Amino acid sequence: MNEAAPRPGRTVEAAVERLDGETTKRDYDRVVTEEPLELRLVAGGATQTLAVTMRTPGNDFELAAGFALSEGIVRNREDLAGVSYCIDPAIDAEQRYNIVNIELGSAELPDAARFERHFTMNSSCGVCGRANLDALRDAGITPVADDVRVSRSVLYTLPERMREAQRVFATTGGLHAAALFRPDGTLVALREDIGRHNAVDKLTGWALFESAFPLHGSIMVVSGRASFEILQKAAVARIPVLLAVSAPSSLAVDLAQAFNITLAGFARGSRANVYNGLERITA
Amino acid sequence: MNEAAPRPGRTVEAAVERLDGETTKRDYDRVVTEEPLELRLVAGGATQTLAVTMRTPGNDFELAAGFALSEGIVRNREDLAGVSYCIDPAIDAEQRYNIVNIELGSAELPDAARFERHFTMNSSCGVCGRANLDALRDAGITPVADDVRVSRSVLYTLPERMREAQRVFATTGGLHAAALFRPDGTLVALREDIGRHNAVDKLTGWALFESAFPLHGSIMVVSGRASFEILQKAAVARIPVLLAVSAPSSLAVDLAQAFNITLAGFARGSRANVYNGLERITA
Repeated sequence: MNEAAPRPGRTVEAAVERLDGETTKRDYDRVVTEEPLELRLVAGGATQTLAVTMRTPGNDFELAAGFALSEGIVRNREDLAGVSYCIDPAIDAEQRYNIVNIELGSAELPDAARFERHFTMNSSCGVCGRANLDALRDAGITPVADDVRVSRSVLYTLPERMREAQRVFATTGGLHAAALFRPDGTLVALREDIGRHNAVDKLTGWALFESAFPLHGSIMVVSGRASFEILQKAAVARIPVLLAVSAPSSLAVDLAQAFNITLAGFARGSRANVYNGLERITA
Repeated sequence: MNEAAPRPGRTVEAAVERLDGETTKRDYDRVVTEEPLELRLVAGGATQTLAVTMRTPGNDFELAAGFALSEGIVRNREDLAGVSYCIDPAIDAEQRYNIVNIELGSAELPDAARFERHFTMNSSCGVCGRANLDALRDAGITPVADDVRVSRSVLYTLPERMREAQRVFATTGGLHAAALFRPDGTLVALREDIGRHNAVDKLTGWALFESAFPLHGSIMVVSGRASFEILQKAAVARIPVLLAVSAPSSLAVDLAQAFNITLAGFARGSRANVYNGLERITA
């Protein structure tokens, strides 16, 4: 086994020239680390690459577990025998923390065709938004039956609570966040990444490890917009309420309706737009 | 052939409940359309799926051409025999505008292994940021030799010029933009998409069709952050100056240095941070 490489941090120092009007100042800046992460599935002695994603290092095992959840590779904690960095002696030290093995409890690897094309392509009806929803149904995902209620006075505070929690760690302006809250506004968990989808995978992966999965009764807040991919992850994790700081997409709205997820966007101050599931938001 | 479906628009109407303090107002909102797009390669009578991407409809042929450029499938206009929507009679009307055929001039399809794993995986040195840069070099991408100069007084105005051009079309807050400018600040082209990378692909694809490729002497502005993927696309398109409204990632800075691209971020008012290539920005 090679000597352990220094573990990559969430930010690195970069030389910068700060332009301000006509002045220039040499300085140093912290920039968000972006490194590839290869996720490998391991079962019955066989190994296969599941995906390579660009991510910010940190909470890599959670990211791996959450990704496997989102893709339907694992459904619960029991399906997951273990998650570890690759310790193949042939692997350079530099890559040591960029390859994660997801050990499945099953005797063999899942059918490659099942995960290579993701939900997007799993449907017999081809390539259209409706097919994406059908594919989720085919994967066994049902509408979220959850009668949790959140008051709008709490809802309005959540984006700022998330930003406040981000400030505790923040050294740079470049990270997306996803956070889980209880209906009383208590922050349960917060994860960050350069990729919006990765931040959500880290959260659901955290829930799996903490036996907090599925995420009944919880509210997820995301720092950016709400796309199909984010809603898909929420549906798989059984999250009943999703609040996005920015806009939802058309397919995100469709998915929220089809899977009974409360979807709110443009959360600013004491305002929000609710695109589905207003009944979970009380006065 | 099925009857033509209505072509999907860039936005769709969605019912919304606008919460403001304790009031609720039923209304309609425009949300950004998000639909899957399957890109297929066609050569010598054979067809193969290149990728499925979630995108905002519009400029789909440009997106296809730009994606093929970024992935090294085509290198210039001559490699591209044609781009068209799939007219397979077996395809549902609903999908008609979600499948694009990229016809190659070559006698056969490129080696599948070459594009299935993208640049990220093409390198023999495995999974790490440095390998991503090596993979680009292995694909024949060289440092951008371009002595274009842009004054900082012009540079500072570009993000606002881009936003102004966006306002002309804007019906929603949910779109990323990428724009090309001449060094004198003239807007050359602007493209939008729910995905940052798609907006850039639409721009480089536009350049290919307009015989404006490669993009020597131009400045690209992107509305969000600058990640590895954005810089990779800039390097392939030979764009010498990239200005991001938000933060760059560590690997974006590495790529800018390795491929001699001027990279500026946090462009706000008369300020910007320059991470590489200050010599192209004059007083």
